[in-house]
Amino acid sequence: MKTPTLETFEAMNLQQSIPVETIRYDDRGLVPAIVQDYLDGTVLMMAWMNQDSLQKTLDTGETWFWSRSRQELWHKGATSGHLQKIHSIRYDCDSDALLIGVEQIGEIACHTGERSCFHRVNGSVNPPPADMLSQVFGVICDRRDHPSESSYTSKLLADGDNKILKKIGEETAEVVMACKDNEPDAIAGEVADLFYHTLVALAHHNVDLKAVYRKLQERRR
Amino acid sequence: MKTPTLETFEAMNLQQSIPVETIRYDDRGLVPAIVQDYLDGTVLMMAWMNQDSLQKTLDTGETWFWSRSRQELWHKGATSGHLQKIHSIRYDCDSDALLIGVEQIGEIACHTGERSCFHRVNGSVNPPPADMLSQVFGVICDRRDHPSESSYTSKLLADGDNKILKKIGEETAEVVMACKDNEPDAIAGEVADLFYHTLVALAHHNVDLKAVYRKLQERRR
Repeated sequence: MKTPTLETFEAMNLQQSIPVETIRYDDRGLVPAIVQDYLDGTVLMMAWMNQDSLQKTLDTGETWFWSRSRQELWHKGATSGHLQKIHSIRYDCDSDALLIGVEQIGEIACHTGERSCFHRVNGSVNPPPADMLSQVFGVICDRRDHPSESSYTSKLLADGDNKILKKIGEETAEVVMACKDNEPDAIAGEVADLFYHTLVALAHHNVDLKAVYRKLQERRR
Repeated sequence: MKTPTLETFEAMNLQQSIPVETIRYDDRGLVPAIVQDYLDGTVLMMAWMNQDSLQKTLDTGETWFWSRSRQELWHKGATSGHLQKIHSIRYDCDSDALLIGVEQIGEIACHTGERSCFHRVNGSVNPPPADMLSQVFGVICDRRDHPSESSYTSKLLADGDNKILKKIGEETAEVVMACKDNEPDAIAGEVADLFYHTLVALAHHNVDLKAVYRKLQERRR
């Protein structure tokens, strides 16, 4: 049965995922390629491919672009080591843009050393948006690394495992009760609370949420 | 204290987030704009903005693009009702691409009726990649809607609340034990199991994971 899942590089036939010859390249022979983290959805960069670089990408399972400034093929990460391993490639309804799901080696895509090229807001550096759970985890880790007296998260982290784990137990009981009551809004709220306190436990033990996402991916049937 | 969070439209000064005049438009006066769901990181579409459409986007808090085929400003969703409400705008290290976090009204961005324009793999329709938790939730909902005898998820859903909630209790106890043992790999694995079973409870009660993400966003301090 077909399931609505992300194909992995291993599971899909990468060579056949994109009809290289029917992609609509612009008058310079280029198509924009958006590169996205395969675990948390962060958009890492946008660059350009011509037909050759798209073919090399499909052949090697790593990203190759066309450098407009240097007018040459560019194997992303060949110099820095920050290669991008392909997990999926999609094209859009007009066949004139690509979306590539990757594992970003080294967690750095930008030549500035930032994780994502899209880090600029009003001239200052901001982490790129990921999914909401990852964003909340980012805030929790920041509270851990820069405690604030007025912050509930900082206080919970300072109290340590026994307080954090007791809260996880309480929130679990509240999820159970909300489900038994079959109250959709309460279920969403209690699951949010359970997730939040579980993220605090992860942060307290220096376990990255991405490690959890990797486990989820491995176990997916 | 500055925290590494996604600015919301309300919290940030949208007008000042992008230096409209210093963005590097191409020789047609255009810059590519990637549109991303602000909750689960799904890339919904890519379109083009000129300086006018970017300014209108900042002024109105909704997306406006430049239609290359019709050579006119285009207020996304004005006809279909599928407006995009801006939550954040970033630009990249070269100032020649934009990344826009939105709430997609109606959950449909593509003119084909699909949620995302990036739904094509080898000619067939595939849901766009989001974060891993949302992808796993998609698989669980598919198992709910199309049960399979060999699927653990289908079996769990058929057994109903008492079985699902008992599993959540067990997995919570295992998270607690892994934390007390301070074993990073076990913590990641047990949290993955807890999240998975919690997603099954959500699917069983027809509560969308996005409702949980919305609660998390509302509560973020």
